[in-house]
Amino acid sequence: MEDTLIIGTVALDTIETPFGRVERALGGSATYASFAASFFSKPALVSVIGHDFPKEYIKLLKGRGISLEGVKIEDKTFHWEGFYEYDMNEAKTRKTELNSLENFKVKVPERHKSIKYIFLANIDPEQQHETLRQMRKPELVVLDTMNFWISSKKDQLIEVIKKADILLLNDGEARQLFGTSSLVKAANGALKLGPNAVIIKKGEHGALMFTKNKHFSAPGYPLENIKDPTGCGDSFGGAFIGYLAKTKDLSEQNFRKAVVYGSVVASHNAEEFGPDRLKKLSMSDIEKRYKEFQDIREF
Amino acid sequence: MEDTLIIGTVALDTIETPFGRVERALGGSATYASFAASFFSKPALVSVIGHDFPKEYIKLLKGRGISLEGVKIEDKTFHWEGFYEYDMNEAKTRKTELNSLENFKVKVPERHKSIKYIFLANIDPEQQHETLRQMRKPELVVLDTMNFWISSKKDQLIEVIKKADILLLNDGEARQLFGTSSLVKAANGALKLGPNAVIIKKGEHGALMFTKNKHFSAPGYPLENIKDPTGCGDSFGGAFIGYLAKTKDLSEQNFRKAVVYGSVVASHNAEEFGPDRLKKLSMSDIEKRYKEFQDIREF
Repeated sequence: MEDTLIIGTVALDTIETPFGRVERALGGSATYASFAASFFSKPALVSVIGHDFPKEYIKLLKGRGISLEGVKIEDKTFHWEGFYEYDMNEAKTRKTELNSLENFKVKVPERHKSIKYIFLANIDPEQQHETLRQMRKPELVVLDTMNFWISSKKDQLIEVIKKADILLLNDGEARQLFGTSSLVKAANGALKLGPNAVIIKKGEHGALMFTKNKHFSAPGYPLENIKDPTGCGDSFGGAFIGYLAKTKDLSEQNFRKAVVYGSVVASHNAEEFGPDRLKKLSMSDIEKRYKEFQDIREF
Repeated sequence: MEDTLIIGTVALDTIETPFGRVERALGGSATYASFAASFFSKPALVSVIGHDFPKEYIKLLKGRGISLEGVKIEDKTFHWEGFYEYDMNEAKTRKTELNSLENFKVKVPERHKSIKYIFLANIDPEQQHETLRQMRKPELVVLDTMNFWISSKKDQLIEVIKKADILLLNDGEARQLFGTSSLVKAANGALKLGPNAVIIKKGEHGALMFTKNKHFSAPGYPLENIKDPTGCGDSFGGAFIGYLAKTKDLSEQNFRKAVVYGSVVASHNAEEFGPDRLKKLSMSDIEKRYKEFQDIREF
């Protein structure tokens, strides 16, 4: 039975980095998140794709045990084209063709409405909010977003943050949303809105988690070759909630472990283009790098 | 007896940040480094000041048990004027008056030439090199530098790196010096030149240490208020070598502890202008925050 509901985008991504280029690769926030979660739990994906969506991608996702019952098929698939420059920290958008995403209205399948672990991956905050309205009794709501929604739908985003248990942001977004250069102040601002925990993703610099009276600092994994950071934040979120859905332990201590599992899967994801690395990733690769994360922070 | 030799600059700093301004505050790489080292060991400072150097600053340094025997007095004191913008990550220089630093030739006092622990804090690499020539039998040479020397005296800098045991750089400098966006590649490039360890300082993101087959990631301390980052890198280096001079243990494991002590002192230093925080810092403040560094990285 599916135990993790993930709503977000499914996309075809055309990506260029200093190390190569891929066209119409499998992408989207919910795709990466579901893929990453599937190492730990059974995800139900809620999104929309177009009639042009390649059958092999469907097969790939189903092969990971991901339910696609909540994925509508309409029009053409959302297409994102972007590139990264030398420092690889920020994706620059060349083209966004929303297509079927433009009029997407979330509809959670009846039998998935009782799922307890919910990841609102990056998508329009109104659809994130609508998802929560359709769910019966969530135990854990994890929310992610992006700078685009902070600029264009801040009020709606704030409303969803108020209903989330855990907020994920990257460092730039945290500073933007709370209007401060201090990540500690930004995190305190977020905690005041309602969430029990705020996780600030800092790419190669790791991640910070702030709860009421504690903070946790997860190291970044020192990668020699970063090929394509697309989907790292989404993979982080997916592995994070997948691990929590698997262990059913919502203590701050277990959140820390989940942050490290999120970091492990995200660091792998950056090593190849699109989701290529995740396709070949095994649970033993994950456990091996988890152990390395323990070693590199020991003193 | 002095057990840590520190060569670098002593300056008067005029600093502006979004949180205030100070004029002709006590500054310079060797000043911050000696101050930080003095919590752990007995530093001998080698540098030059001018006749305008305030008596109270002399008193302050001597009060910390720092030997000023190797400090020449000539002309006017080196004066740096700079500012930080909102993100506080990079100092911008408004004015540099080298004054007595312009023709400075290092001269290590006879009785300090046998000191075993040497910190070549940020100064002209030719003077760093000359210092090593004057020393009898160093056991540990720690080297710091800055982007200015990487641009203007790269060859001379490389020569000193070849003689150093531990190289300190910030992340931007590491990328600049080794022409790569990957910190792992930059670190490997540095290790090939000779040092046994390379420490990459990342400001609020912590520090990375690379040795032949291992890496260590020290967390950044999440400061709510950063008032002035001037001297943080120098304080890091000073506390780092001071701790090693005190413990006389040059294992990779003890380097890790030294990195954390460096981070602890540097994080305190950013909390007030110039060296104001260091002036009031106690060993129990340091131990308390060291304990926090352990807690924030536990999972």
